[in-house]
Amino acid sequence: MKSLVFYGPGNVKIEDKEIPKIDENEVLVKVKAAGICGTDRHIYRGEAPARTQVILGHENAGEIIETGRQVRSLKKGDKVCIDPNIFCGQCYYCHRGEVHLCKELQAIGVTRNGGFAEYLVAPATNVYKVKENVSYKEMALVEPLACCLHGIDLAGIRPGDFVVILGAGAIGLILLQLALHSGASEVIVSEPNSKKRKLALKLGASKVFDPFNDNLEKEIKIIKREGADVVIEAVGNIHTFKQSIQLARKGGSVLLFGVPPKDKVIEINPFEIYKRELKLKGAYINPFVTDRAVRILESGMVNLKKLVTSQYTLEELPNVLDGNLDESNVKSLVIY
Amino acid sequence: MKSLVFYGPGNVKIEDKEIPKIDENEVLVKVKAAGICGTDRHIYRGEAPARTQVILGHENAGEIIETGRQVRSLKKGDKVCIDPNIFCGQCYYCHRGEVHLCKELQAIGVTRNGGFAEYLVAPATNVYKVKENVSYKEMALVEPLACCLHGIDLAGIRPGDFVVILGAGAIGLILLQLALHSGASEVIVSEPNSKKRKLALKLGASKVFDPFNDNLEKEIKIIKREGADVVIEAVGNIHTFKQSIQLARKGGSVLLFGVPPKDKVIEINPFEIYKRELKLKGAYINPFVTDRAVRILESGMVNLKKLVTSQYTLEELPNVLDGNLDESNVKSLVIY
Amino acid sequence: MKSLVFYGPGNVKIEDKEIPKIDENEVLVKVKAAGICGTDRHIYRGEAPARTQVILGHENAGEIIETGRQVRSLKKGDKVCIDPNIFCGQCYYCHRGEVHLCKELQAIGVTRNGGFAEYLVAPATNVYKVKENVSYKEMALVEPLACCLHGIDLAGIRPGDFVVILGAGAIGLILLQLALHSGASEVIVSEPNSKKRKLALKLGASKVFDPFNDNLEKEIKIIKREGADVVIEAVGNIHTFKQSIQLARKGGSVLLFGVPPKDKVIEINPFEIYKRELKLKGAYINPFVTDRAVRILESGMVNLKKLVTSQYTLEELPNVLDGNLDESNVKSLVIY
Amino acid sequence: MKSLVFYGPGNVKIEDKEIPKIDENEVLVKVKAAGICGTDRHIYRGEAPARTQVILGHENAGEIIETGRQVRSLKKGDKVCIDPNIFCGQCYYCHRGEVHLCKELQAIGVTRNGGFAEYLVAPATNVYKVKENVSYKEMALVEPLACCLHGIDLAGIRPGDFVVILGAGAIGLILLQLALHSGASEVIVSEPNSKKRKLALKLGASKVFDPFNDNLEKEIKIIKREGADVVIEAVGNIHTFKQSIQLARKGGSVLLFGVPPKDKVIEINPFEIYKRELKLKGAYINPFVTDRAVRILESGMVNLKKLVTSQYTLEELPNVLDGNLDESNVKSLVIY
Ligand SMILES: NC(=O)c1ccc[n+]([C@@H]2O[C@H](COP(=O)([O-])OP(=O)(O)OC[C@H]3O[C@@H](n4cnc5c(N)ncnc54)[C@H](OP(=O)(O)O)[C@@H]3O)[C@@H](O)[C@H]2O)c1
Ligand SMILES: NC(=O)c1ccc[n+]([C@@H]2O[C@H](COP(=O)([O-])OP(=O)(O)OC[C@H]3O[C@@H](n4cnc5c(N)ncnc54)[C@H](OP(=O)(O)O)[C@@H]3O)[C@@H](O)[C@H]2O)c1
Ligand SMILES: NC(=O)c1ccc[n+]([C@@H]2O[C@H](COP(=O)([O-])OP(=O)(O)OC[C@H]3O[C@@H](n4cnc5c(N)ncnc54)[C@H](OP(=O)(O)O)[C@@H]3O)[C@@H](O)[C@H]2O)c1
Ligand SMILES: NC(=O)c1ccc[n+]([C@@H]2O[C@H](COP(=O)([O-])OP(=O)(O)OC[C@H]3O[C@@H](n4cnc5c(N)ncnc54)[C@H](OP(=O)(O)O)[C@@H]3O)[C@@H](O)[C@H]2O)c1
Ligand SMILES: [Zn+2]
Ligand SMILES: [Zn+2]
Ligand SMILES: [Zn+2]
Ligand SMILES: [Zn+2]
Repeated sequence: MKSLVFYGPGNVKIEDKEIPKIDENEVLVKVKAAGICGTDRHIYRGEAPARTQVILGHENAGEIIETGRQVRSLKKGDKVCIDPNIFCGQCYYCHRGEVHLCKELQAIGVTRNGGFAEYLVAPATNVYKVKENVSYKEMALVEPLACCLHGIDLAGIRPGDFVVILGAGAIGLILLQLALHSGASEVIVSEPNSKKRKLALKLGASKVFDPFNDNLEKEIKIIKREGADVVIEAVGNIHTFKQSIQLARKGGSVLLFGVPPKDKVIEINPFEIYKRELKLKGAYINPFVTDRAVRILESGMVNLKKLVTSQYTLEELPNVLDGNLDESNVKSLVIY
Repeated sequence: MKSLVFYGPGNVKIEDKEIPKIDENEVLVKVKAAGICGTDRHIYRGEAPARTQVILGHENAGEIIETGRQVRSLKKGDKVCIDPNIFCGQCYYCHRGEVHLCKELQAIGVTRNGGFAEYLVAPATNVYKVKENVSYKEMALVEPLACCLHGIDLAGIRPGDFVVILGAGAIGLILLQLALHSGASEVIVSEPNSKKRKLALKLGASKVFDPFNDNLEKEIKIIKREGADVVIEAVGNIHTFKQSIQLARKGGSVLLFGVPPKDKVIEINPFEIYKRELKLKGAYINPFVTDRAVRILESGMVNLKKLVTSQYTLEELPNVLDGNLDESNVKSLVIY
Repeated sequence: MKSLVFYGPGNVKIEDKEIPKIDENEVLVKVKAAGICGTDRHIYRGEAPARTQVILGHENAGEIIETGRQVRSLKKGDKVCIDPNIFCGQCYYCHRGEVHLCKELQAIGVTRNGGFAEYLVAPATNVYKVKENVSYKEMALVEPLACCLHGIDLAGIRPGDFVVILGAGAIGLILLQLALHSGASEVIVSEPNSKKRKLALKLGASKVFDPFNDNLEKEIKIIKREGADVVIEAVGNIHTFKQSIQLARKGGSVLLFGVPPKDKVIEINPFEIYKRELKLKGAYINPFVTDRAVRILESGMVNLKKLVTSQYTLEELPNVLDGNLDESNVKSLVIY
Repeated sequence: MKSLVFYGPGNVKIEDKEIPKIDENEVLVKVKAAGICGTDRHIYRGEAPARTQVILGHENAGEIIETGRQVRSLKKGDKVCIDPNIFCGQCYYCHRGEVHLCKELQAIGVTRNGGFAEYLVAPATNVYKVKENVSYKEMALVEPLACCLHGIDLAGIRPGDFVVILGAGAIGLILLQLALHSGASEVIVSEPNSKKRKLALKLGASKVFDPFNDNLEKEIKIIKREGADVVIEAVGNIHTFKQSIQLARKGGSVLLFGVPPKDKVIEINPFEIYKRELKLKGAYINPFVTDRAVRILESGMVNLKKLVTSQYTLEELPNVLDGNLDESNVKSLVIY
């Protein structure tokens, strides 16, 4: 089978590999669509770790070809999407049910072979059956959708709340839709790219701002003197981290969802956190949320199709990882 | 001013009264629309208590005519809706912030004069300013909307959840919309009246059932083997109370929102509650939710206009309270 | 190895079996102490299910003799206690993180061999290392302690709350201590047996009552007019289920912890649940709490030694299961 | 009546004033004990605002001398303590039930006359009756106790958790006791003053450290490799704010309870918040917790007597505010 193998920073190769064998608790999946994510680029550039000689690709959807002897919940022919994260069950975090913080976390497409290949092996525990009405394209986005769902669970938006989202990439645009589906009565989005701002409006934003030309803080004071009940950072930039704290109302929550650079620091004023009784919360991947993400896919309540702006073949992938994306690009897929 | 005064069960009169005076912390409101609610009928029939000689009407919207000396948050000309419930601040429940359970709770339209009159006095704490884009008709529904919001806060629906609602009266149809705005991926509604079932479908229900002709339990097993993540009783009938417990999945929640008859009992099987680890929750009125209800009104995310199926003048009200409603009626208003 | 094998209701035998082999993810444990629980008696009497020919015993503590090839978190010589419940990871409930509701739940001592034997095999995921300062006797009680901890997590006691507990068996007396360690400012216990009432007082109850001689409801009104913030049923009797609902204050919570008879029903008044805005919650076993239960054991903050009122050898166990317990007995152990 | 009047930074005077008159919703209290708090010193030094010509003193306990016409919940002779914070009921925050964030918050002893005087007037809503078994000395500490209770509610400690507290002043020592009463299985305290460290051990700390001589981070890694489930900052120093973030485990919570200097900033690494999925929470005063604080006083479960290290007369107060405290001082009171 054709596969994209990672040999270290800047070094990936398309190779022909044997179709892998499965264990009694695993399934073999014919990959139909796989998302390309910021993390894949980070790995390619050596900014995020991955096992050498691994097949990359952690956002995967496909069809089941074979099931292990012990697998009862799935069968040949099932349309499935895959949660890449495999927890150990034995560590401090697994014992507390905080499995995403597992000390021995494995991930399909990072520490074991992933979906940038024609076939993929996954433990049955990580495979979710999806109804016929959903396309493989949408299914390939279940992992980012699930991450956003975990973030939304932490954000604590209540119907009627006023929400601000910084960033309208794929993640910001999913979070926007989930914020609306959590009852936000107004969602303001800040995003420099005008095409993405337009998309945000189409997907339900009440208002959009360009962070480089508008005065967001001032505008928000006009709209809502108190500031936002919930602010979500979805850029991964340290400036927007600072900004997100400023935009929250007294008693408000700030969800820090973007992945900031490892070594950068920001200055915060602890007195503000006390006096305004703020809650700042990190969000890390997707524990126990993929089933609900699949139900959301099936219901059609979140528009993921509009987010897919480019599609590639596996052969094009090395160039895609190497090159620069058009900045209006929202989400790219590999289609088989 | 023309007023509907309550003189005891079956005894209400339209009378001409003086426009009331306000205190330093109160406002005088010219009533523009007032909802007629099941509770008003219960009072009329002697099934729920109200002070004798009180002007009824607890779902009120209008325009501010005058403000007390101490009132800073509101001004003449403001378009406002009114939370009827006034808590004492001194009792066990008020001290714990559970103000809706106040031992000395007063209610506009029940224990002090309400909105079935041309003018109304309310403490400034209970009056909420609403933006120009909302009609008085919709504003008169803020109280039931706020009650439903409190119920939804308790229900704990998370995006992707599967919800069942029993009853599609005004309350069921508001709860349906709020359940969708809490991220429910599917909401099934059970309701005997076919017009209301149609309305439920229009407002977003995935499927509707007639409880007297369909086998809801069986159908739900087909749709979702596990049962519902959250079931909401919105009838106020003891049979639907029992049914709501049966329809919940293991680990699921049952929100008991309807007001059942005071003296009726139902049989439940405690083993089921243990084995299926159910959560049963009552919901009582609307503590600290009216501001969010107003934001929801302003955003237009909940359709309240479709719920208003009849409008009356104050003069028609005695007959309305005395007569029987067309069973397809959803919500009635008095318009001034 | 000597083992107690279950051959069906009323039929258990002490047999000599081979020491079992372990898998790569399992450990072999030399059993040192095993709790005898109400469930064991229910199994013996045919009132609760168990696999035929299984070795019973689900409350186990011992020393690790051997570890499988893949086990990194544990080693030979470790003092350990064991969570009996093994979840499948693939079902609806496992996917949502509600692993105790797993549709394919396995249990050591019920569906696979348990600790009424000299040796025991357990998956490493279910085995918890304990510090030297804790005795095997106490460690054998980690499973009931963990169940109670899950119940307490659900009960939502806050510092300063007033709590009532019905029943002072082993479970009631653990819940009493955990309620105090959740900040309850007063805990009243109702229990017919005078020795257990005395023990409850020693373990921190503010007051105790005999349900058959005292008027609990009346007394509670005297102590606290409002009723209890949280009521915990720890008997498993339908009368106490009814009573627990009566004793809660408006807005209060009722934790239904006892296991009532499968087929018995009680009458409840749904109007009460609405008007008093009650929360009724079932509690089922012990998801993701065993690690904290072990920390509680190690800290010595809960007194479990006082609860062990009888100790037996494995050979005595058939008679113990067959006979009747002295009613003052709180908790029995098998010691090896 | 003798009173301590504030005339601006550095300027307080003991004056003889008339006993104040009460409103229909107020009570007149003969002050018996009043706490002197860091805030009083901040006001005296001009670092925190207060109304000019106000009588200071916001931690008050006394006996009711007279009640207003409308007051039903209290009577002459009642032993009471007083919540100083009076909310407006009309603003955004009051409408959401977040009354401590009220935009027009008034405080007894800051914006209206307080308890550094022989008599004090308070609205009945803010006055709590206390049982005979509690001394006025302890009752004067109900305000800091209530603030700590609010912090503990936010911290989310669960039984079995490992907690670190930075600072063992009056506040740190109350938080220590409440953390234990929330089920913490281990509480480590960091505090430079050796007398206070000893007191922390007496009050239940498992271990204490001197931040200037010990390597707390290293020691904690030895004790608990993961770090703390919950860290509480109770110093009000920017260094300890930084440290509190470092000491939390992945998925842990950091409660920022101390009041840091207004204009100081700290550098934080946002990547840490993401990767370790931290929750940072401010805590601000005491909404809806005073009733529970009173129950805690009455139960004796928190030792407040040990915290009172100095007592003064009203006449000594100007010197006390002006002078420097012995650094081993924990809590000072004015006794009448
Ligand atoms: N927490 C988790 O579990 C998790 C999971 C998945 C992803 N993430 C993180 O989420 C973040 C967003 O992911 P993504 O895939 O949507 O990335 P993306 O496509 O790069 O989107 C980020 C967007 O933010 C915009 N932006 C840049 N500067 C901004 C500013 N000052 N204010 C507002 N917007 C600004 C960017 O505009 P331009 O295109 O014009 O620069 C871009 O559209 C990333 O940091 C990613 O690593 C976190
Ligand atoms: N908790 C609170 O704070 C709160 C606040 C407001 C209202 N409520 C309560 O909420 C309930 C609903 O209020 P509402 O104004 O919507 O009343 P409603 O107009 O009478 O609506 C109830 C609906 O339930 C339908 N129904 C009757 N039997 C049914 C069954 N077996 N299965 C399913 N549906 C059935 C009725 O149909 P037909 O018309 O054909 O009979 C009706 O359409 C009432 O009990 C009300 O008192 C509670
Ligand atoms: N939810 C879970 O996950 C879970 C886990 C473990 C156990 N449980 C259940 O918890 C319950 C308690 O377990 P246990 O081991 O402590 O049982 P137990 O030893 O039988 O204790 C029950 C106690 O309740 C007393 N009692 C009887 N009638 C009472 C009444 N009317 N009012 C107050 N107390 C009364 C009994 O007194 P006498 O001895 O005089 O009869 C006995 O001391 C059982 O139902 C058990 O199955 C549940
Ligand atoms: N959030 C709220 O609502 C609220 C309410 C009340 C109080 N507070 C705040 O809570 C904080 C504590 O109040 P308090 O009355 O207990 O004050 P305090 O008596 O000054 O106590 C602070 C303690 O921290 C110690 N400390 C100093 N540097 C330290 C370090 N690096 N590491 C560990 N401990 C250190 C001090 O020791 P030395 O004495 O040797 O310096 C002192 O014992 C203050 O900031 C106060 O303003 C907040
Ligand atoms: Zn793990
Ligand atoms: Zn009250
Ligand atoms: Zn399962
Ligand atoms: Zn306010």
